[in-house]
Amino acid sequence: MQTLPEAGDTTRRRRSSRGTTGRGGRRVFNFAAGPAIMPRVVLAQARDEMLDWRGTGISVLEMPFTGPEFTEILARAIEDLRGLLAIPSNYRVLFLQGGAYAHHAMVPMNLLRGRERADYVETGHWSRRGIAEARRYCRVDVAASGERDNFTRVPPRQTWRLNPDAAFCHITTNETAQGLEFHWTPETGEVPLVADMTSDFLSRPVDIARYGLIYASAQKNVGPAGLTIVIVREDLLGGALPGTPTVFNYKIQADHDSRVNTPPTYAIYLAGLVFNWVQGQGGMPAIERLNRRKSAKLYAAIDANGFYRCPVAPADRSLVNVCFRLSDESLEARFLAQAHRRGLLNLKGHRVMGGIRASLYNAMPEEGVEALIDFMEEFSRHHG
Amino acid sequence: MQTLPEAGDTTRRRRSSRGTTGRGGRRVFNFAAGPAIMPRVVLAQARDEMLDWRGTGISVLEMPFTGPEFTEILARAIEDLRGLLAIPSNYRVLFLQGGAYAHHAMVPMNLLRGRERADYVETGHWSRRGIAEARRYCRVDVAASGERDNFTRVPPRQTWRLNPDAAFCHITTNETAQGLEFHWTPETGEVPLVADMTSDFLSRPVDIARYGLIYASAQKNVGPAGLTIVIVREDLLGGALPGTPTVFNYKIQADHDSRVNTPPTYAIYLAGLVFNWVQGQGGMPAIERLNRRKSAKLYAAIDANGFYRCPVAPADRSLVNVCFRLSDESLEARFLAQAHRRGLLNLKGHRVMGGIRASLYNAMPEEGVEALIDFMEEFSRHHG
Repeated sequence: MQTLPEAGDTTRRRRSSRGTTGRGGRRVFNFAAGPAIMPRVVLAQARDEMLDWRGTGISVLEMPFTGPEFTEILARAIEDLRGLLAIPSNYRVLFLQGGAYAHHAMVPMNLLRGRERADYVETGHWSRRGIAEARRYCRVDVAASGERDNFTRVPPRQTWRLNPDAAFCHITTNETAQGLEFHWTPETGEVPLVADMTSDFLSRPVDIARYGLIYASAQKNVGPAGLTIVIVREDLLGGALPGTPTVFNYKIQADHDSRVNTPPTYAIYLAGLVFNWVQGQGGMPAIERLNRRKSAKLYAAIDANGFYRCPVAPADRSLVNVCFRLSDESLEARFLAQAHRRGLLNLKGHRVMGGIRASLYNAMPEEGVEALIDFMEEFSRHHG
Repeated sequence: MQTLPEAGDTTRRRRSSRGTTGRGGRRVFNFAAGPAIMPRVVLAQARDEMLDWRGTGISVLEMPFTGPEFTEILARAIEDLRGLLAIPSNYRVLFLQGGAYAHHAMVPMNLLRGRERADYVETGHWSRRGIAEARRYCRVDVAASGERDNFTRVPPRQTWRLNPDAAFCHITTNETAQGLEFHWTPETGEVPLVADMTSDFLSRPVDIARYGLIYASAQKNVGPAGLTIVIVREDLLGGALPGTPTVFNYKIQADHDSRVNTPPTYAIYLAGLVFNWVQGQGGMPAIERLNRRKSAKLYAAIDANGFYRCPVAPADRSLVNVCFRLSDESLEARFLAQAHRRGLLNLKGHRVMGGIRASLYNAMPEEGVEALIDFMEEFSRHHG
């Protein structure tokens, strides 16, 4: 077996200002599904401000959450996010803890509002988790399922059976494990549309007004694990189940600007830095263009010959989690090991699905995608 | 009114390796109740490793939580904490989200185990919050209350009315708002003792075996907001209420090493650095000696003359949150403003209690306490 040259051996790559260098100055690209790559300039700013936030003499980590400095950081982060996504004024933005999995429970606890049932669309691993958790609080009707297609396509809207008595209709806009994404927003009439947007949040513009509630763990495009963002239409608040923990009662948190208890202050600070970075990239339209370009290149490389294959229907392929297989699956372990040695990190697919997964979140530079494609072409030449 | 000289004007203080410098090189000491002061060397290490954790080429913020690097960080943090507190092998250590306020709900949800009532000891603001939240899940009996004494003393054990049918007996070992601390461990027989140890966790040795469950938000002696540590005796797990969210089911999290979902990875990393720092200080006995010395000095200054007063009974005074008043309360705003100008930050008492509060967590150097005492003496001379 011939050993492939190291991608990081080229001086051009090693010196790139957008890359990241590992042991011995080797360039690495981190394709992890989350926690995931963050913008280098954000990390550099966090590093520079770690011991002294703007002359205060203290770290953001040390700030009282009710003090003027953190109050400013929090307000600014919310304002910047509102601007980026053009969030209408009748929506509240909450910065909470727990992760999307916690909010799989909190969404029905907060949104049932006296109703007893909710519609869920089953599109893969994460929507299934959401369904299983919701079933502990209400009757869940699966309005549509992609199971028959092995979750390789989003069930078309005309096949959905929606119940007008449902408290809400829940979708998972991007299935991180399957690499499947909604590229359209379903119309659900009077029933509020609720979306777990964890893995494609902030990867593209969203028409917030089409949704009743959006929630997202931050550890994909926003950055740090430990922060969950909830965007909710005000009129849906106030009908939480009696057993809803106070800190997860969206109405109470909205009334207290997410400060019913100590929020995850440092994660919010980092999120704010990322929001600034996204602004600097040109906002959501520019980010979406870049993400489309990156994923289109990679899918083209996958489809180029029979060596690789992507089972997901082209119209429903994820822009952020590109999942594929080697036609000869017995080569996948070798592919992953050689990729790792080339500095192409964390390409292993979700543990349930197997295969290869390249997560191309906002912070992944186009150069990283090109390095992966170069490697894939070389690997297929050596093993084809 | 004469202006006091700035404490930070002395060259000795400005150059201290243990201090922190603000705008213009001014030395500051942060007495915030939480999030709170962290060890400078920990922040410096976090800064140095921010863009590249030990040659991996990626930040801890970017690590998959199931990968070998973070698995090592998590395992090491748990091992170090177990060592510091000599946690017996039949106890599990969980690193969760939510904050203590979330766990005010999760403790009864997890520990009722088919019982219908729990005993709570009411000692101040935080135990009251715990009681109010627990009442949403079970019958709460207040086994003892310090209300009659305006929460200036811990009710003696012989006055408690414990119910042998209680699922557990809950105490708050340190009342952050009142400055009141348990300096003894109550005996509760067969009923498991449960403690919210948020603000004195890791400030002194604890005989873990006396407790059924201990929980603590990290943003006091451990560091970052967004991490809640739960230490629980194994035999108490497995009887959670049906509506317990999966990610807050202690049994399920214990079975999955706190990785049912993405844990707050960066906060765990920082906690691990703090555990190393505590080891370097000589472990819990050395930390306790320092904390006793710091608080004894400050209480002595408060008691020195009638200018300041601490309402808390001497035997029950907190080592970590020293709460006091000026005998002339109308001077308190001026005291706080002048202290702030001297670089003595965040001394304002809890918003419900008012007055002055100096939090002397592990990372507060003795020099900070001395600077505060110097200022207090000067202030009393000028206004006495």
